[in-house]
Amino acid sequence: MEKDNNPIANTPTPPYYAVIFTSIRTEINDGYGEMAKEMTNLAEKQPGYLGHESARDGLGITVSYWESLESIRNWKMVSEHLFAQRMGREKWYASYKTRISLVERDYGFGGI
Amino acid sequence: MEKDNNPIANTPTPPYYAVIFTSIRTEINDGYGEMAKEMTNLAEKQPGYLGHESARDGLGITVSYWESLESIRNWKMVSEHLFAQRMGREKWYASYKTRISLVERDYGFGGI
Repeated sequence: MEKDNNPIANTPTPPYYAVIFTSIRTEINDGYGEMAKEMTNLAEKQPGYLGHESARDGLGITVSYWESLESIRNWKMVSEHLFAQRMGREKWYASYKTRISLVERDYGFGGI
Repeated sequence: MEKDNNPIANTPTPPYYAVIFTSIRTEINDGYGEMAKEMTNLAEKQPGYLGHESARDGLGITVSYWESLESIRNWKMVSEHLFAQRMGREKWYASYKTRISLVERDYGFGGI
């Protein structure tokens, strides 16, 4: 959620990067909500963070936006460390896929 | 939904393109479900279509995957035509943002 409470991220003019994280949860909750919240708080403090969007109804999709590949690499180290502290993401996720992509163009409607 | 029923799209080795469509719905249903279903059916028949992923809980995120910018342009024409027939997307969407991005790298877990 953006600080302006618009769930659609207010990203700058392209190019910038998007990390598309698609996941299916296990049935284990054990700290998941807290972990997800902490993850968001950590991401927002990272250099190069531009915003994120998230939805889940069975399938979960979180897209985070970044200035550069370097900022994504740094974020990956921070998030892997958090998962390692919590003994792995495999307890929460049955499967996931991460895609790193360069946003070349964007357009919108509705004051976006 | 993929034909193999895995909601995480079974995309090929990068590079390929991702169209990230983030939206907030109006409260108008008037044919929305049918339109969304028809949109998916049309997308799956398009040349260059590689798969898609979708989730909504307030915010909606649909990511569709494509072989090339040309396949995305063709798909855009088809989808705009469908919206035009149904008198515009503005009745269903309060706001949306479309981002066209080149997936450079991906990795996963859980048989993805």
